[in-house]
Amino acid sequence: MVVAEVKIELKKGVADPEGMNTKKTLKLLGWDVDKVETGKLFEIDLGDNISKEEAKKEVEEMCKKLLANPVIQTYDISIID
Amino acid sequence: MVVAEVKIELKKGVADPEGMNTKKTLKLLGWDVDKVETGKLFEIDLGDNISKEEAKKEVEEMCKKLLANPVIQTYDISIID
Repeated sequence: MVVAEVKIELKKGVADPEGMNTKKTLKLLGWDVDKVETGKLFEIDLGDNISKEEAKKEVEEMCKKLLANPVIQTYDISIID
Repeated sequence: MVVAEVKIELKKGVADPEGMNTKKTLKLLGWDVDKVETGKLFEIDLGDNISKEEAKKEVEEMCKKLLANPVIQTYDISIID
């Protein structure tokens, strides 16, 4: 079983209102926080009939075509299994 | 600078419609995918005046009080800086 973990994050300079509001709320709750950034996580199970190298290439294609918006987001793929 | 990365994932058995639809779409696009699970990512910058151990404890409190819903979600904290 090959499982890929994909982290999708906003590029530097792209507004992250959810992160800003989370920071504001953490501060209201009493914590000293400098910055909060949010992102998305995908765990993709690619089955058994694929090598780790092929899996990484396929998931990169998935990111480009569906999972991430290359204009505002970056993606980071790790094969975890 | 101490930065914590928090992964929020749905507990096993909790429906993940976004994951199911992502899987469906990836299959429509021609990829052989067994399962897709989605999650959220927070990167929290806690500044310089805190140790890694304290940071981990604080972020755990943040997860319990704000970032995660313990009824349906699990959280995983790693100190990355």
